[in-house]
Amino acid sequence: MTATATAPNPLREGLDTQRISDPCTIVFFGASGDLFKRMLLPSIYELRQRGTLPTNFALVGFARSQYDDDGFRAYCKEQLDQFAYGAKPDGAMWDDFAKCIRYVTADFGDTSHFEALKRILEENDRDLKTGGNRLFYLSTPPSVFPGIIDQLQKAGLDPKSNPKGWTRIVVEKPFGTDLASARALQTEVEKVFDEGQVYRIDHYLGKEPVQDIMALRFANVIFEPIWNRNYVQSVQITAAETLGVEGRGGYYDSAGALRDMIQNHVMNLLALVAMEPPATADADAIRNEKFKVFASIQPPALADVPKMAVRGQYDAGLIDGKPVPSYRTEPDVNPKSDTETYAAVKLFVENWRWAGVPFYLRSGKRLARKVSEIAVTFKNIPHRFYGEKTDEIDPNVLVIKIQPDEGVSLRFEAKVPGQKSHIRTVSMDFNYGTGFGVQSPPAYERLIADAMRGDQTLFTRWDAVQRAWEIVTPIQQSWQNATPTFPNYGAGSQGPHGATQLFDDWRTL
Amino acid sequence: MTATATAPNPLREGLDTQRISDPCTIVFFGASGDLFKRMLLPSIYELRQRGTLPTNFALVGFARSQYDDDGFRAYCKEQLDQFAYGAKPDGAMWDDFAKCIRYVTADFGDTSHFEALKRILEENDRDLKTGGNRLFYLSTPPSVFPGIIDQLQKAGLDPKSNPKGWTRIVVEKPFGTDLASARALQTEVEKVFDEGQVYRIDHYLGKEPVQDIMALRFANVIFEPIWNRNYVQSVQITAAETLGVEGRGGYYDSAGALRDMIQNHVMNLLALVAMEPPATADADAIRNEKFKVFASIQPPALADVPKMAVRGQYDAGLIDGKPVPSYRTEPDVNPKSDTETYAAVKLFVENWRWAGVPFYLRSGKRLARKVSEIAVTFKNIPHRFYGEKTDEIDPNVLVIKIQPDEGVSLRFEAKVPGQKSHIRTVSMDFNYGTGFGVQSPPAYERLIADAMRGDQTLFTRWDAVQRAWEIVTPIQQSWQNATPTFPNYGAGSQGPHGATQLFDDWRTL
Repeated sequence: MTATATAPNPLREGLDTQRISDPCTIVFFGASGDLFKRMLLPSIYELRQRGTLPTNFALVGFARSQYDDDGFRAYCKEQLDQFAYGAKPDGAMWDDFAKCIRYVTADFGDTSHFEALKRILEENDRDLKTGGNRLFYLSTPPSVFPGIIDQLQKAGLDPKSNPKGWTRIVVEKPFGTDLASARALQTEVEKVFDEGQVYRIDHYLGKEPVQDIMALRFANVIFEPIWNRNYVQSVQITAAETLGVEGRGGYYDSAGALRDMIQNHVMNLLALVAMEPPATADADAIRNEKFKVFASIQPPALADVPKMAVRGQYDAGLIDGKPVPSYRTEPDVNPKSDTETYAAVKLFVENWRWAGVPFYLRSGKRLARKVSEIAVTFKNIPHRFYGEKTDEIDPNVLVIKIQPDEGVSLRFEAKVPGQKSHIRTVSMDFNYGTGFGVQSPPAYERLIADAMRGDQTLFTRWDAVQRAWEIVTPIQQSWQNATPTFPNYGAGSQGPHGATQLFDDWRTL
Repeated sequence: MTATATAPNPLREGLDTQRISDPCTIVFFGASGDLFKRMLLPSIYELRQRGTLPTNFALVGFARSQYDDDGFRAYCKEQLDQFAYGAKPDGAMWDDFAKCIRYVTADFGDTSHFEALKRILEENDRDLKTGGNRLFYLSTPPSVFPGIIDQLQKAGLDPKSNPKGWTRIVVEKPFGTDLASARALQTEVEKVFDEGQVYRIDHYLGKEPVQDIMALRFANVIFEPIWNRNYVQSVQITAAETLGVEGRGGYYDSAGALRDMIQNHVMNLLALVAMEPPATADADAIRNEKFKVFASIQPPALADVPKMAVRGQYDAGLIDGKPVPSYRTEPDVNPKSDTETYAAVKLFVENWRWAGVPFYLRSGKRLARKVSEIAVTFKNIPHRFYGEKTDEIDPNVLVIKIQPDEGVSLRFEAKVPGQKSHIRTVSMDFNYGTGFGVQSPPAYERLIADAMRGDQTLFTRWDAVQRAWEIVTPIQQSWQNATPTFPNYGAGSQGPHGATQLFDDWRTL
């Protein structure tokens, strides 16, 4: 492709924003779980209403709960009544959708249940013309992943046994709980699926502002010249929540902020900010560049971890003026738990573009504000002559806002109106909602549709997952080796004081 | 000065924005004219109310109209009742101000009237402690300038005859009507005043967004790296009005857009955009850099003018839906006038930073929209891979908005929310009014206060005025040599079609 055409663009008005996949059946393992009813089913139903699903489509639920097909359809309708974010299920649209739904009450260890699934898929191919294309979506607890993969093969549901169509698998995070378990899981995956058939989902990558990072960097000429160590002082990536563990205490207590957020979501954001322009827009061209970023980050030496990473756990405190309990008193959490609910990490991308520029990552629960953002702070001006001497000239900051606000904000210095040449910091803002007049679609919608279409761009490749684990592993080990003084930050605060040892200029939440 | 201090700035809250000058008397030559009553007097009165005038201050009107001191005070009050933009004249504030006002009914050719002025100034020095400091403000028709300067000397009001305090002169534009007349005027000025005592006013330079150009460029690190021929495709400077000649037909018909706007206002904007960072913030350091920009612009060869400049004159048309007459039917305009009411010029700043980057200047009356702005259009991205193939990727544009909106706008490309990777142009905006929560003070306020304080930064130095005339002289000559086909654009339009021969991508008014 060459540079910008100057011809007028007929698509300016009423852009088509849809791409439709091949016919297929999507199978949700763990269809009676929370993720399915809150996110996956509503996304599928919305895709159907937008006309983004293929006409020949089927959905199969596969889970422990007891349903027959009609019972599961009723369950789905009930969930959509509550969680559908577009139109609620009703009339012909719903009836048409319900006909494509089947269910298997299953024990994940019982091959006969997978064989039952296989019969349904073959019926779909015959009756609904789903063309032999199968998307297996693993939304179960991660401990069950290897067993499901094994059973798929035993039941002849592996890709090699399905020459008629494609077979793909979507794996929810976490992909492993540390480097060793991730490698073990990958070994199981590789036995049955090629990398091109595996869709490791990180729903952050489906968020519109995250997708916009590439547009911002590579569809504009003005940012790339200053997007390097000559002009950038530091990069801060924040994923802060005000929520606590919200009924997921059991899962969270075995995970913690480093595993749950930093190793996947936050590291992926770092890769998008730091990567070189890919050769093409192909999924692998982009994923090659993302991997190169991780390959340029050296895992810290165990002895250096205290200088590179800070952990925290929340105490009781106030969120929005309401008292909330300490982490250790949350349901299903060990009352002596040493799990971190806050993690801050300083990393360096050691390449020509970024050498010496610190990347500060932080994520935590029960913090002062819900905010996910990437803040690129530029260096101070090289020489100062304009402005009154007493004025502080703050560095420029470009903020990519991911949630709850979605947009871009540029902080810069301007003259204060008046007789003197005073300077103050002001900002220019672009907001997705007002800018485009539409709400961004939920990340899952995009990602499920991409998986059905076979577009792996927004999914994480094994080499990157593995490297991200390699980077956080010394931090995990260091933290396991020492007992923390927890709790060390109050709910509703900025996080542990210790984080300022890492970096004294964290953006205020 | 070194780079940014990191200490907190105690001036962040409630910045003082005032600087107060020495005691002085300001004398307005032409005090019965339009500029005085509409702009100068209201500015002075507002400065008084803000506390920006020195305590020991006096104002003397000097003009043909017959007033005694009290009569002129009554006239001033009447004008302020109509034109004051802050509080209207009333109570002790007004009484206090009125006491400082004197008037001389004058024939500009009569030395005795200048001697009368001298006596008043000496009385002021004695009674009002104005310290011998005198600011002579020439707001008369330019034809009278040399005579006034001559008489000032004859009456002993020249700087050399006033060792007690300072003597400065403010000269309203136009400074000459062409190169020869400007040089002749300067010869007269130089006989009496040193360059350091001459304040050639260009009120555009007092506008807040114009002053902010230096802050934008030199208090921010992110713009300067891309502010050059490597990244900038072109610069467009526009000063468009919807107004016609508004009762100034006599003056305007002898001036035209090139002289009235391009040679001064618009060229000064060009200098601020294109100049190198000055060594210091001193007036002469800044004016050195502005002159260097003009020195880098070669006056076009006479034969090249048709490729470099386009003129126009408005026909009848519609402004805001209301019919307005053609230029040639305006009062006091020659019905066969060949004066241009629109001028567009293409110039190159031939130095290392800008070689090859066209600067497009345009100004006109009765155009589609009132807008003054500087638009820096960046080059296309060097390589395209992101976005749907059919999407046009527009270049980035940074717009410095001068009037009626005051602010900065950055046009960039972003991903359209949705399944595809469509790209559209969006913008981030900073608005002075909402950004600082204050209205920008009128330009004259700042400039009068600067002249009283002796700060020449925002005034045009002779070398720059002369060079600007040298640059436009071949255009003037070429236009004089050929009879234009006027009128050639309708009132309320984008200007003459011919302007697209110069540049086919003028920003829509």
